[in-house]
Amino acid sequence: MKQQNNGQNLNNFDDLGFCKLDTDRERRTGHPEVVFGMNKTLPQVELIFAKLVAHHERALVTRLQPEMAAPLLQQYPNAIYNEASKLLSYGKSSIPLPGKVAVLTAGTTDIPIAEEAAGTIEWMGGTVDRIYDVGVAGLDRLLSQKERIQAASVVIVVAGMEGALVSVVGGLVRRPVIAVPTSIGYGANLQGITTMLAMMTSCAAGVSVVNIDNGFGAGYQAAMILQLMEEGA
Amino acid sequence: MKQQNNGQNLNNFDDLGFCKLDTDRERRTGHPEVVFGMNKTLPQVELIFAKLVAHHERALVTRLQPEMAAPLLQQYPNAIYNEASKLLSYGKSSIPLPGKVAVLTAGTTDIPIAEEAAGTIEWMGGTVDRIYDVGVAGLDRLLSQKERIQAASVVIVVAGMEGALVSVVGGLVRRPVIAVPTSIGYGANLQGITTMLAMMTSCAAGVSVVNIDNGFGAGYQAAMILQLMEEGA
Amino acid sequence: MKQQNNGQNLNNFDDLGFCKLDTDRERRTGHPEVVFGMNKTLPQVELIFAKLVAHHERALVTRLQPEMAAPLLQQYPNAIYNEASKLLSYGKSSIPLPGKVAVLTAGTTDIPIAEEAAGTIEWMGGTVDRIYDVGVAGLDRLLSQKERIQAASVVIVVAGMEGALVSVVGGLVRRPVIAVPTSIGYGANLQGITTMLAMMTSCAAGVSVVNIDNGFGAGYQAAMILQLMEEGA
Amino acid sequence: MKQQNNGQNLNNFDDLGFCKLDTDRERRTGHPEVVFGMNKTLPQVELIFAKLVAHHERALVTRLQPEMAAPLLQQYPNAIYNEASKLLSYGKSSIPLPGKVAVLTAGTTDIPIAEEAAGTIEWMGGTVDRIYDVGVAGLDRLLSQKERIQAASVVIVVAGMEGALVSVVGGLVRRPVIAVPTSIGYGANLQGITTMLAMMTSCAAGVSVVNIDNGFGAGYQAAMILQLMEEGA
Amino acid sequence: MKQQNNGQNLNNFDDLGFCKLDTDRERRTGHPEVVFGMNKTLPQVELIFAKLVAHHERALVTRLQPEMAAPLLQQYPNAIYNEASKLLSYGKSSIPLPGKVAVLTAGTTDIPIAEEAAGTIEWMGGTVDRIYDVGVAGLDRLLSQKERIQAASVVIVVAGMEGALVSVVGGLVRRPVIAVPTSIGYGANLQGITTMLAMMTSCAAGVSVVNIDNGFGAGYQAAMILQLMEEGA
Amino acid sequence: MKQQNNGQNLNNFDDLGFCKLDTDRERRTGHPEVVFGMNKTLPQVELIFAKLVAHHERALVTRLQPEMAAPLLQQYPNAIYNEASKLLSYGKSSIPLPGKVAVLTAGTTDIPIAEEAAGTIEWMGGTVDRIYDVGVAGLDRLLSQKERIQAASVVIVVAGMEGALVSVVGGLVRRPVIAVPTSIGYGANLQGITTMLAMMTSCAAGVSVVNIDNGFGAGYQAAMILQLMEEGA
Amino acid sequence: MKQQNNGQNLNNFDDLGFCKLDTDRERRTGHPEVVFGMNKTLPQVELIFAKLVAHHERALVTRLQPEMAAPLLQQYPNAIYNEASKLLSYGKSSIPLPGKVAVLTAGTTDIPIAEEAAGTIEWMGGTVDRIYDVGVAGLDRLLSQKERIQAASVVIVVAGMEGALVSVVGGLVRRPVIAVPTSIGYGANLQGITTMLAMMTSCAAGVSVVNIDNGFGAGYQAAMILQLMEEGA
Amino acid sequence: MKQQNNGQNLNNFDDLGFCKLDTDRERRTGHPEVVFGMNKTLPQVELIFAKLVAHHERALVTRLQPEMAAPLLQQYPNAIYNEASKLLSYGKSSIPLPGKVAVLTAGTTDIPIAEEAAGTIEWMGGTVDRIYDVGVAGLDRLLSQKERIQAASVVIVVAGMEGALVSVVGGLVRRPVIAVPTSIGYGANLQGITTMLAMMTSCAAGVSVVNIDNGFGAGYQAAMILQLMEEGA
Repeated sequence: MKQQNNGQNLNNFDDLGFCKLDTDRERRTGHPEVVFGMNKTLPQVELIFAKLVAHHERALVTRLQPEMAAPLLQQYPNAIYNEASKLLSYGKSSIPLPGKVAVLTAGTTDIPIAEEAAGTIEWMGGTVDRIYDVGVAGLDRLLSQKERIQAASVVIVVAGMEGALVSVVGGLVRRPVIAVPTSIGYGANLQGITTMLAMMTSCAAGVSVVNIDNGFGAGYQAAMILQLMEEGA
Repeated sequence: MKQQNNGQNLNNFDDLGFCKLDTDRERRTGHPEVVFGMNKTLPQVELIFAKLVAHHERALVTRLQPEMAAPLLQQYPNAIYNEASKLLSYGKSSIPLPGKVAVLTAGTTDIPIAEEAAGTIEWMGGTVDRIYDVGVAGLDRLLSQKERIQAASVVIVVAGMEGALVSVVGGLVRRPVIAVPTSIGYGANLQGITTMLAMMTSCAAGVSVVNIDNGFGAGYQAAMILQLMEEGA
Repeated sequence: MKQQNNGQNLNNFDDLGFCKLDTDRERRTGHPEVVFGMNKTLPQVELIFAKLVAHHERALVTRLQPEMAAPLLQQYPNAIYNEASKLLSYGKSSIPLPGKVAVLTAGTTDIPIAEEAAGTIEWMGGTVDRIYDVGVAGLDRLLSQKERIQAASVVIVVAGMEGALVSVVGGLVRRPVIAVPTSIGYGANLQGITTMLAMMTSCAAGVSVVNIDNGFGAGYQAAMILQLMEEGA
Repeated sequence: MKQQNNGQNLNNFDDLGFCKLDTDRERRTGHPEVVFGMNKTLPQVELIFAKLVAHHERALVTRLQPEMAAPLLQQYPNAIYNEASKLLSYGKSSIPLPGKVAVLTAGTTDIPIAEEAAGTIEWMGGTVDRIYDVGVAGLDRLLSQKERIQAASVVIVVAGMEGALVSVVGGLVRRPVIAVPTSIGYGANLQGITTMLAMMTSCAAGVSVVNIDNGFGAGYQAAMILQLMEEGA
Repeated sequence: MKQQNNGQNLNNFDDLGFCKLDTDRERRTGHPEVVFGMNKTLPQVELIFAKLVAHHERALVTRLQPEMAAPLLQQYPNAIYNEASKLLSYGKSSIPLPGKVAVLTAGTTDIPIAEEAAGTIEWMGGTVDRIYDVGVAGLDRLLSQKERIQAASVVIVVAGMEGALVSVVGGLVRRPVIAVPTSIGYGANLQGITTMLAMMTSCAAGVSVVNIDNGFGAGYQAAMILQLMEEGA
Repeated sequence: MKQQNNGQNLNNFDDLGFCKLDTDRERRTGHPEVVFGMNKTLPQVELIFAKLVAHHERALVTRLQPEMAAPLLQQYPNAIYNEASKLLSYGKSSIPLPGKVAVLTAGTTDIPIAEEAAGTIEWMGGTVDRIYDVGVAGLDRLLSQKERIQAASVVIVVAGMEGALVSVVGGLVRRPVIAVPTSIGYGANLQGITTMLAMMTSCAAGVSVVNIDNGFGAGYQAAMILQLMEEGA
Repeated sequence: MKQQNNGQNLNNFDDLGFCKLDTDRERRTGHPEVVFGMNKTLPQVELIFAKLVAHHERALVTRLQPEMAAPLLQQYPNAIYNEASKLLSYGKSSIPLPGKVAVLTAGTTDIPIAEEAAGTIEWMGGTVDRIYDVGVAGLDRLLSQKERIQAASVVIVVAGMEGALVSVVGGLVRRPVIAVPTSIGYGANLQGITTMLAMMTSCAAGVSVVNIDNGFGAGYQAAMILQLMEEGA
Repeated sequence: MKQQNNGQNLNNFDDLGFCKLDTDRERRTGHPEVVFGMNKTLPQVELIFAKLVAHHERALVTRLQPEMAAPLLQQYPNAIYNEASKLLSYGKSSIPLPGKVAVLTAGTTDIPIAEEAAGTIEWMGGTVDRIYDVGVAGLDRLLSQKERIQAASVVIVVAGMEGALVSVVGGLVRRPVIAVPTSIGYGANLQGITTMLAMMTSCAAGVSVVNIDNGFGAGYQAAMILQLMEEGA
């Protein structure tokens, strides 16, 4: 059932019973609603995906398990599924965003979350510079990449354990830094809670933090910043 | 003792014994080091402040108690102290930043933190639109301000208790939203920890979070985004 | 062994060894004891169910896994099992309750818990209006349902993540609001603890909260309120 | 500045700069906005109070310290201040509510919170039956009051420490029970967090919980239930 | 390797490499070392069990999974394995203890832990009176057993969720009460942490608490009290 | 108002309005109700104290601040106030209890809590052997007292920080050990929470734990055990 | 891609894309980078292992599951895999370290973590004295080993539950003690968090702590101390 | 009362009633018992101090408030009190220790804790190199000190907030690193708990951690390592 709210403050949405799809979101925010794939059934994802593709000609599903992705890939040969990031994407924004987002990881095991951020940015029309495994225990690895990092418009730092990389990077750049704590670690790491709290209380100014393992959220905010550059004040 | 590090990767700093003042920071990041006034002694703040003014012709001290501010105001008649935000500022950036940051609060008691954000942005050269007491329990207060909020380049949401305002605002705008949890609340609020965690797990995309009561951090990141607009990709 | 306590303050119960079935509860509270199906063995559930049906001609089991439900459905062809809510019900209250309970969810994945609330209310004789997927990130979805929500006698809000929906709804209605935090979320959500604490510290007056994922508890209290209307002060 | 929002979905409010007073709330919910007195300045409380009295001819301020109450009592000789509950009230609802709310405490030290609940209900037009110091360690104290408790339309249980009273009461009545954890206790009590969590996980059905020490919230919801009885489905 | 420590302060033990078996414990405490079966390998348990039987002619293993118990039952036909409590016992104390321990549970699902307590007491020579499913939500079930409970020398209360039973029982008896929190519950129960903290902060005097699900520890301490009666001051 | 409940299951109590004094408790448990002095007003304590003395000819108040004790000492010249333990006692049990309770502390700063336990036991008719400052970091201090400790009927261990003393003592004796965590410590001690949790998870069997700083509770339970010896099974 | 950083402050590393291998670490710290095997893919471990062997002629992988170890053992017949410690080692340091590290465990189930520490030390050139199952509940087991413990240059204490062993050992020796909390325990143990906090707040001076189950970290630091002895101040 | 324990395993101590002074500790560990000044009374500290000076000719009191220090300084003109570190020392070890301990702080406000570490080391005979305010947000400050840090035998890192400095330093040196979390920070810092957990889960090998603000503990362990160098394996 398609509902139309005519009032000036109201938007449109598509009522699927289990879901009221916010089809007006692209107009409001520049991008269609993104589907969080976890805990949804396959028929739910299929129906939402079909509606999004029909309405916007592009769609993005996050945290989709491979066995859920397979039938969708069969139905949509142009869809792309990334095993590392668990992103299923169809199409992408037709408006290329200016600048570049540097996506850093402290270690190898943080890469899947970094790829979630990178894939989100690219789907939204942005460009990504991937700089992986530059954790601070071997500082030269990081310092050797300083120029690439400083050339970015926005910096995303993906790190687990104590998350120290974000404080070091925060002190090196004149650009906003978005920190993504990951659940990589054990014991005192508390499944990433320690990393998150540590990043929150970072000694570097200009850093903000998203939820544990929320590569999507960091990528989305970074793209919002590029979009602001594109559209102007 | 002034130290000069000539290596290409190294910066300058001023070694005051108890403090190594990062006098190179303005060159790197666009702004002088900001002094965190809490837990410092008056002589420490006085010396750092003097060095900053001498070096950069502007300075900002956060969380400075009135009894610490008084002697500094006597020495620096052009300094300005804001009782609500506890900011002591001297001068401001000579480069005006484009756009505007909307600073929202959910309630009246969140205003001091919002003022810390606003004062930081203004010292860094930005423009602020203050929109206070628009918490979601009376939704019309918020909706009546929708156009002002949507006109901003960046939105800062300052809220205590359950922090619901950030999720609602996050769904209304096409711009980055920075959330500041405040320690306003009691009991299950856990001195703002609940607010912080709730904002972290917000259902709105494009939201990032800074530490509890960290108005400065949110303002700083917002100004970084405006600075990016000013300087370009 | 059937025990009879003759004192005026005492009730009856049926001692099954592993369980003392509170067969007097219907007289005291209006409804038979409800069986919590989790962590019980099949023979335990079968014996309790048989006793309840024999004594009250109706019964309700919550959180019953499908493999436990199957043999009971064979024995009791009139029993009904709902896969989503995991409720097994037999019969229902013969006294229809006045008014209506609006059961809202913020997202699609909150629906099973909402169905547990709804099924409980219906078994107790009440009427439910299901209003699903009206989370605040797309506010118009909620506002389009405002009249339905305001027409209810009691409102149950089922939400995960930051649980912001409850604060918004709490400000819209003149009726009691019961909040059910769900364990939908990840990271800073802390398996629903954050949602629960956030709802507890909601800025809206007149809201109370039940345990995480406790749709049954919310439904039960809502029906108690309708029962009060039915029976009068 | 008085703002008028003419749209059908919008309400009125009074913009005081630091506060947007929700003057439409009485129409929506049956009662004027209640002022949370903690962390507000005296001039803020005075201005809000004056506006509320002018607009609604009644007002309620919670958690107001005696030194804040004194000047208001001078200005408003008809206002009443209760030292135990820290409530300042002016006038009360002109519509008497049916039924009665039983307000129980487990111990003597829980009484101030119980009085906050009781005073709120009375200001909203309801009737309260106070039943204090009936904690379960001396069960006969509770059982001697069973008839009074069962005669109430709604039961509020105010308890600290392990909060066991709520589970016992929950099993005795056919009416909704609202639990208020208090911060009375030490050590493992965790300033009431343990009490709150214990009440949440109570073995009695039909119980919901409000924030620690939130007597106001419990009283407000209880009055909402009585109001539902008054207004009908 | 058998080690003999001749010093007056030292005991004997049997060094098995991975384990130094405290064979002197029976002389010191009245009972052989009890084996905690969880996280040990089968060969480890077999060797320790053989040593204990050889040295003391009785042994007790706690938390032994059925697949670990099976080979031991084959080797020791006189050993007894209880599926509910996961206790494997061989022999028992030759000194019968006076008095009786009442072991109560709040619900059906607490019974396995209660059986661990009961089996431990019986192996140590004591007598147990099992009183199950007397949780406070149906208070008459408990009150109907008051005389049996008051007749015991020691009372063990096994309860999950909010653990309210312990406070009610604590107020009814003139004997020591040992509380065992169980991990039965969900959400705010925090896997029994809430129950444990609530029991700790119980309003009843004379109650002490053991670890979550630690039926063994409660049974052991209860038997120690009976042993004190047996041996005198 | 004196209330008499004639039912066989009911006790007597004295209704003081703010308090329902459980005057029947001595008959049920052997000892009058003990008054928790914290958070009560002086008039409340005075009235309860007067009632207890009148009814039982003995009374005990715990956690009474010196300024509250002074007026009571004036009114009751035979009352005794202990500055360290904050106990105010009047009279004591006329029935001497057999055996002896060893009260140990790990350090000097744990002594006030130990004295609360000791004073409680003595008021209840028991004998105490005080063994202070025997923490495990200097093990010989403890071992030099081994015989005194082993001669006790019950052992109370009062310790802060990591609470290791309880595990060592638990392995040395054949008697029940009651552990009292204290809030002595800092940082990772978490105001005694760590101590409490560590004692809970002690490797020694036969240990139970009371709330942080709850010397009264440990003393009370120890006296209950002596009373059991006195009265027999 | 091999990168050479010629600056005097910079090191070399080997950029494998997913990993920047810190091949300069042996020069800086005396030992090659150690590979954390958990959460890495087999191809990742294989490539890193090959690079390390090629560059340093020795390598160590921690927390490697048996199914990951098998193919590496086939490729490197001289590699050694320890099932208990989950260490895969190839070669060892050619510089024997002086002194000896005593590695103690409180119980049998702590041995795998102790072996991780021991294997790390041996790979780094040190000597280990294993002293297992000397928990404090049977103090004589520990005291019988006092001379061996006091003869060590460094002492590592591996313990779960309340971790009391570390405090007792800390008081017996004149050498640094490194504590390793293990996740052995249940309930109040909180998966080792309690053990860790308890060790942190130990009453013994000279104790430091590493992460839960981090045998590697403790072994590494112990070897660093031996290395200091070897190399001199 | 002086007690002499003649057994070979036992030490001497001096029983002061409230305290059993471990006068044998110097023989066992190389240093007299150190007095923790917090929560002790002045007479207690005076008596212990007198005994220590008489027995060892040196003494150290930690966390002594100035008003407690004043009378001791009058009695012992040779005693030294440091206002920053709150250490009162008398004499020092007559055995100079080899090597040097670098004590680093991240910020200015961490200096008091660093001074506690430094003063402890110096009293024990060691040499300290103080390197303050080298937090990672201005990395050059740290890198400019790299040679001094690498020249130390042991490195102590004192840091608050997210504690990132320890991970960076851990990667730069071939010596043991001891981390001291401080309670400097706010909000998500959780009074230093976050810092402590973050340091625990640091990505650098060879790092161990002491309690929050425990400069003494870190200094003590560092001196133990120097003592090992002095005495040899």
